[in-house]
Amino acid sequence: MRDVAIVGVGMTKFGELWNSSLRDLGVEAALNAIDDAGCDKLDTMWVGCMSGGMFNGQEHLGPLIADYLGRTPIVATRVESACASGGLALRGAWLEVASGLSDVALVVGMEKMTDVSGGQATYGLAGAADRDWEAFHGATFPGLYAMIAVDHMHRFGTTLEQLADVAVKNHTNGLHNEYAQFRTKVDRQTVMTSTPVADPLRVLHCSPITDGAAAAILVPLDQAKKYSKQQPLKIAGIGAATDSLALHQRKDISHLAAVAESGERAYKMASLSPRDIDVAEVHDCFTIAEICVTEALGFFERGQGGPAASDGATAADGKIPVNTSGGLKSKGHPVGATGVAQIFMLAKQLRGEAGPVKVANAKRALAQNMGGTGASSVVTIIETV
Amino acid sequence: MRDVAIVGVGMTKFGELWNSSLRDLGVEAALNAIDDAGCDKLDTMWVGCMSGGMFNGQEHLGPLIADYLGRTPIVATRVESACASGGLALRGAWLEVASGLSDVALVVGMEKMTDVSGGQATYGLAGAADRDWEAFHGATFPGLYAMIAVDHMHRFGTTLEQLADVAVKNHTNGLHNEYAQFRTKVDRQTVMTSTPVADPLRVLHCSPITDGAAAAILVPLDQAKKYSKQQPLKIAGIGAATDSLALHQRKDISHLAAVAESGERAYKMASLSPRDIDVAEVHDCFTIAEICVTEALGFFERGQGGPAASDGATAADGKIPVNTSGGLKSKGHPVGATGVAQIFMLAKQLRGEAGPVKVANAKRALAQNMGGTGASSVVTIIETV
Repeated sequence: MRDVAIVGVGMTKFGELWNSSLRDLGVEAALNAIDDAGCDKLDTMWVGCMSGGMFNGQEHLGPLIADYLGRTPIVATRVESACASGGLALRGAWLEVASGLSDVALVVGMEKMTDVSGGQATYGLAGAADRDWEAFHGATFPGLYAMIAVDHMHRFGTTLEQLADVAVKNHTNGLHNEYAQFRTKVDRQTVMTSTPVADPLRVLHCSPITDGAAAAILVPLDQAKKYSKQQPLKIAGIGAATDSLALHQRKDISHLAAVAESGERAYKMASLSPRDIDVAEVHDCFTIAEICVTEALGFFERGQGGPAASDGATAADGKIPVNTSGGLKSKGHPVGATGVAQIFMLAKQLRGEAGPVKVANAKRALAQNMGGTGASSVVTIIETV
Repeated sequence: MRDVAIVGVGMTKFGELWNSSLRDLGVEAALNAIDDAGCDKLDTMWVGCMSGGMFNGQEHLGPLIADYLGRTPIVATRVESACASGGLALRGAWLEVASGLSDVALVVGMEKMTDVSGGQATYGLAGAADRDWEAFHGATFPGLYAMIAVDHMHRFGTTLEQLADVAVKNHTNGLHNEYAQFRTKVDRQTVMTSTPVADPLRVLHCSPITDGAAAAILVPLDQAKKYSKQQPLKIAGIGAATDSLALHQRKDISHLAAVAESGERAYKMASLSPRDIDVAEVHDCFTIAEICVTEALGFFERGQGGPAASDGATAADGKIPVNTSGGLKSKGHPVGATGVAQIFMLAKQLRGEAGPVKVANAKRALAQNMGGTGASSVVTIIETV
């Protein structure tokens, strides 16, 4: 297996993008990544998308993007793992380059969620949960994460203020992200008094419904200079894992076992530990998710994710900056795009292009992307070389 | 890259399976493949499915099957490429073993299409076409393939009788397949007078709507004996390619360019030519598709696929036996399962377990699986060692 480098990243604005179709978004992000890399050659393409079917009535998304990017007959593989579709597509692209089968791989993550009503979007998103055992009976994602939050609060004393502080931090970071859906500063009080969704979660604890796409170009590390003038970033570790779809099948609902396992696999491959990570993007689909994920990844002890969110440990200038992009909360969450958009932001950090949220001397960055309530998770560690 | 072998295959009955859910089907096929291989170890899992979303409201299909197979936290990757989802998932599993990342890979292809009405199934299937430029304007797959048929008839003199003979042959073969949806002999006259669907295609030119799943176990060829007592079958070549989703974007609609390209890539990798193939399963979603595919794969000259269907060249005892399983036409076409079910039948052929349709001394077999009107295609060549 060869070492693989990321030599180009691109994304679209995230938001309600009424004038762009799913294919428009995928192609725009891809072209931005190709421009960033300065490399026109492509050998293979991996497309991450959760539900072109339920959101757009469109499947066959590999050839769709290959076609509109003008790259047929290239091999194009669409991967779906709910909200971790982008991260898992990245793993596919990495595998194809690492194996030696292809030299230049494009990964595109994309989702166009506003073609349907809010109710239909919620129905579609519930396809990431267990349809037969959860969604059919009325469970929605805010409801499922609310149960996780209640468990975490009950067992570890996590407070409503700590949950709110995750949103406050991420909106503070997102102010500086030109691609973010909500560049709006919010304070703790505003979050805590926003519209209730599923107790204890309020609307400002929840990531939004978003259109958008992100892309990256992968090449063999030892050939990076041949294909691109961009600073190469090595994929030092990548790990994926699964858990039960349904929360009720888990022994401990606020311990995200697949997140922990995917993290361990990535750390092991990279020969690194949580202490070695300089900056991270994690899957804050709800504020409680960021708290549970930062614990599962070993950034904090179990039960300490809440206090860490309030004491500034995860701020852009904290011990371990988390979601300097604004996270899913402020940047937006076009579900299939998210895992690749995390890589976009981390590449900007490692290349020193992160502007006001730049983490000084960042050399190693971690992205964590998950599906549903953590039934799938992908952790990717990239580093400067 | 290591050589990879298939050491186990399994499938479910194909048909209208009212008592089995999507997950039931996937797990049943997987367990059958695991039993066939006699290997309980699994390192990774690839799941091919076209539209769990539109057919079942269920995405996140990797963890769904990993979960119900009792294999979490295994890595599970769901691949979608419309009706080529199974074939492309097989390519992913092959890549993961060939690269050395995993030793034992399970690939599951599955689809549960009868949870929705016929109209909704047709709507879902149209997600394999270009929704914006074809399906939205009323095009359906029978209509699109009818245009291909008319072009082929006009340019090459292909006859209605030749089209019908594809169905007659495949139903003759399917009589012997215990897994087939329709074990019904049909004669030319019955096909030619069956209910019109989209002129010149009649209902007996069309593959049905089907529930079902198929699975295979892949291991490194040089470790095949360590993991399984089953006769190993080497994956000699695997090639995939794409074309435009929409027919109107193609210069020549009855030449399936992605099929030809995927075939060339597979032949090249295997260092083989069409003449070396002893038995094939190809994607006869409509009778005209089998004719076009057998030409694109080089079994016959352009325009000779029709006469070949009538003169017995593709019969089970013909020059190049095609669809000894009964094909999609008689066996059924649970879209995401089809590419893996083709491998099931070919493994049976190469292992000498194909009963009355056994091809004598078959050593090399080819599977061709495509999405939509050929916007994606995967060709896999397996051989005895």
